[in-house]
Amino acid sequence: MKIIKYTDVKPVLFDGGPARGIAGRVVIGKNDGANNFCMRIFEVSPEGFTPRHSHAWEHEIFIHSGNGEVYNNGSWIPVSAGSVVFIPGNEEHQIRNVGKDPLVFACLIPSNAPEL
Amino acid sequence: MKIIKYTDVKPVLFDGGPARGIAGRVVIGKNDGANNFCMRIFEVSPEGFTPRHSHAWEHEIFIHSGNGEVYNNGSWIPVSAGSVVFIPGNEEHQIRNVGKDPLVFACLIPSNAPEL
Repeated sequence: MKIIKYTDVKPVLFDGGPARGIAGRVVIGKNDGANNFCMRIFEVSPEGFTPRHSHAWEHEIFIHSGNGEVYNNGSWIPVSAGSVVFIPGNEEHQIRNVGKDPLVFACLIPSNAPEL
Repeated sequence: MKIIKYTDVKPVLFDGGPARGIAGRVVIGKNDGANNFCMRIFEVSPEGFTPRHSHAWEHEIFIHSGNGEVYNNGSWIPVSAGSVVFIPGNEEHQIRNVGKDPLVFACLIPSNAPEL
């Protein structure tokens, strides 16, 4: 069993090009023996955003804190603590922080996707 | 894409026998086309607990709010908002609320496990 705080993991920063103000952490992955799916935790700074893109694998997302919006088919949908987002494979998506605090969420992917 | 609040889903209650004060919700599952893994959200009432058991499949858990403890090999390990727990298959485990507010967590399982 592994029990940590997500902040115990050193973040990988994405800040430039298609992403701004993103800190990503693989908190449960293949290095832990998790061979079916992977949990990452992302912190998005105020005014930050993830890339707008699509890929073959799905996302299962739980919003932990903050206020954001998810791009879906031309619209921006508000999300906040307690929101759940399922993004099937090949659907274009982007997440942005529209609040004053970090937007923090868990984003899980299947084992055939890159972990970060 | 599916975007909801987890509380939009009607909970299934487990309160008796090996469990006390548990409300469970499948928020992303096979009905959504999520064929690799499943997200459930659990609320544990104060003094509530999940069953102590083990099974072949793993859990990937993110603690959203509240204060709890996880049973691991004879010890109780404290968890709170931002804790991450990986329980490999076949490891005995139990989660209990030791706070005054609900303990809320996301618990994900692979597709070969029962969704709830």
